[in-house]
Amino acid sequence: MSERASFIAEPARAARAALRPLRLATTDEKNAALRAFARLLRDGEAALLAANRRDLGALHEATAAFRDRLTLDGKRIDAMARGLEAMAELPDPVGETITTWRRPSGLEIAQVRVPLGVIGVIYESRPNVTADAAGLCLKSGNAVLLRGGSEAIATNTAIADVAEKALAEAGLPSGAVQLVRTTDRKAVDEMLGALGVIDVIIPRGGPSLLHAIHEKARVPVIQHFEGICHTFVDRAANAAQAVAICVNAKASRPGVCNAMETLLVHEEIAPSFLPEVASALESRGVELRGCERTRAILTQARAASAADWDTEYLDLVLSIRVVRDVADAIEHIAEHSTGLAEAIVTEDRATARRFAREVDAAAVYVNASTRFTDGGEFGFGAEIGISTNRLHARGPLGLRELTTYKYVVQGDGQVR
Amino acid sequence: MSERASFIAEPARAARAALRPLRLATTDEKNAALRAFARLLRDGEAALLAANRRDLGALHEATAAFRDRLTLDGKRIDAMARGLEAMAELPDPVGETITTWRRPSGLEIAQVRVPLGVIGVIYESRPNVTADAAGLCLKSGNAVLLRGGSEAIATNTAIADVAEKALAEAGLPSGAVQLVRTTDRKAVDEMLGALGVIDVIIPRGGPSLLHAIHEKARVPVIQHFEGICHTFVDRAANAAQAVAICVNAKASRPGVCNAMETLLVHEEIAPSFLPEVASALESRGVELRGCERTRAILTQARAASAADWDTEYLDLVLSIRVVRDVADAIEHIAEHSTGLAEAIVTEDRATARRFAREVDAAAVYVNASTRFTDGGEFGFGAEIGISTNRLHARGPLGLRELTTYKYVVQGDGQVR
Repeated sequence: MSERASFIAEPARAARAALRPLRLATTDEKNAALRAFARLLRDGEAALLAANRRDLGALHEATAAFRDRLTLDGKRIDAMARGLEAMAELPDPVGETITTWRRPSGLEIAQVRVPLGVIGVIYESRPNVTADAAGLCLKSGNAVLLRGGSEAIATNTAIADVAEKALAEAGLPSGAVQLVRTTDRKAVDEMLGALGVIDVIIPRGGPSLLHAIHEKARVPVIQHFEGICHTFVDRAANAAQAVAICVNAKASRPGVCNAMETLLVHEEIAPSFLPEVASALESRGVELRGCERTRAILTQARAASAADWDTEYLDLVLSIRVVRDVADAIEHIAEHSTGLAEAIVTEDRATARRFAREVDAAAVYVNASTRFTDGGEFGFGAEIGISTNRLHARGPLGLRELTTYKYVVQGDGQVR
Repeated sequence: MSERASFIAEPARAARAALRPLRLATTDEKNAALRAFARLLRDGEAALLAANRRDLGALHEATAAFRDRLTLDGKRIDAMARGLEAMAELPDPVGETITTWRRPSGLEIAQVRVPLGVIGVIYESRPNVTADAAGLCLKSGNAVLLRGGSEAIATNTAIADVAEKALAEAGLPSGAVQLVRTTDRKAVDEMLGALGVIDVIIPRGGPSLLHAIHEKARVPVIQHFEGICHTFVDRAANAAQAVAICVNAKASRPGVCNAMETLLVHEEIAPSFLPEVASALESRGVELRGCERTRAILTQARAASAADWDTEYLDLVLSIRVVRDVADAIEHIAEHSTGLAEAIVTEDRATARRFAREVDAAAVYVNASTRFTDGGEFGFGAEIGISTNRLHARGPLGLRELTTYKYVVQGDGQVR
């Protein structure tokens, strides 16, 4: 790309120049920057709200949900600040020794975590992602190139200005957090093609954004698409536990990727279990769609079409299938899973082990809700996303997943 | 790509279909396949040599080195077989628990290694890579799509046929090892574009192959380019040790990526050390190119040009620069390193720690030769390549680096 036409050349250069000082920054310096970032966000509330009003004023034909996501208020600014302060409390992954071993030659090899490099984050018009992604990348020693939704440009610019001040205050390079300050969509294409300039792209947003990025990216991308999560209720399930898990997995927050979309029920338990779970789900407003055998028991259920087994409803809708046994359940999951989270409910140890072994997903649950697939719930303290990639990192992405490693080899004159 | 025009659709389909049985194969089954592969290679020597003669007979205008790399004989077939038998002795990474922890909720989370998926290996006309890559992928539970140099097509086909028989004998899916059986170069482009079909591509070959793949690939690639490795001899170096390390790093095998290309010498030790190391290197036939300060001491050295600091000689040539101190050495390395392997020779603990911390490369050595950057030397038992990628795996790639992980979460009814 030519320098003149490029939207990202300058911020990318600044980010890359920040890498070395950032890599060598102490934990205290990074934490000081995070706390300054939080403090300056709170102190700058008036300016942030003014910028946000400009964005909201420029908005045309937006849904109420879209407008709501874009809107800042004092409480949301405080939530961003608290998020940054919580990151300052997390352990620093950089410099952590993953493992060490000694070779017969006497060489001592240590595998040590180091930052990944320049991370590109492409996201929709949610200003909190600007602070959140900047904080997580900073804590893990990475420089970040942020590209938020164009409707949030004024708000994001104001937040990025605050980040820059906080970095300067902590003595860290201001290039560490770079916002791509344009609403031109070509900037996204430039980021996706910036091989060797951006080390990895982490998109945050809905399936259409993620698929578009996946199709175009030359730079490696860590992401997940749809989460079509299954729960299999085995014949040896504790029925009360299974009902609680299903209601939680489906109805506690239906719009998220780790919510259950399909329930598989062992044929032996189906006649007693299905009416019980249906009643609990229907009391939470869940619409049921079933296979023929399900509908023989739950006459109120609509017929599920072939498409239902591959649909992420993200809504209070559930498809239900009666299966012959655990093998049949595993087979259905292998065919329809998107590899995010799958669960079994059973008291049978051998069946549980088989399911855990044979199902290939980022997270496989025995007697627990798929809704636990989350960095916070895993104990990572923070999360920049969830990955169904097979390379690098799978499942919730915390600070550690934003690092790579190097080998440090100590010798006393060894030659080969 | 249309089915009709595709060279890889059928082998890729077969490889993907093999994934599930392969993922669930026991270690004993995989080892039995490796041993059968070895035995059938030895038993099939006559057929392999006949195929190899066809390839050699079709060769035009090849260098002696190229012809040599393509040539099989009984000894080389035996070496392939022994390599496979050695893989059967290695620990199986699949199913290994990386770490476990317990959440306050009582959930127990285990991070467990699983195969990556379908691996594409693109390589030059070295038939041994066919057996080697097939064996490593098999042992790590991955299916592999092999695309060797077109000059080796008959030999590779014969080796792949043997692999297929071995897999069948061990009761494993023959689709697990797939050779792309064409000399059409379009097959390589197809592999590079096969997003979602091939999970990762590992190229093996010279810089021109690697750069071409890097430029075109849509599928993630794990690789390294040039290895411009430095050794810094500090003022506090043990001079005799430093000479031995430098001679080993430069002259033991100058044509490989982990050989030293540039020597950096602290100005305080340069007057005594440079003549000593030069004499040892020259006795091994190494041509010296130096900066001005080097040439003031080593009058026989040619002047190094600016290009020398960025040249991977892969030959008995060494560029030498006198530096002010460790900071100056680190600065030179930051500018010219390709991130593979860097070394310091010093008895000063603080200087060693600083170098190890500040230099960012896959492997950083203190008082040892950069030549140890190798899967065998690291104790991995086998190596499919070396990575200077920042994502997924860095440094030597053994069996573990050919895996990803899943989380298995055990509960007793937890909901969120």
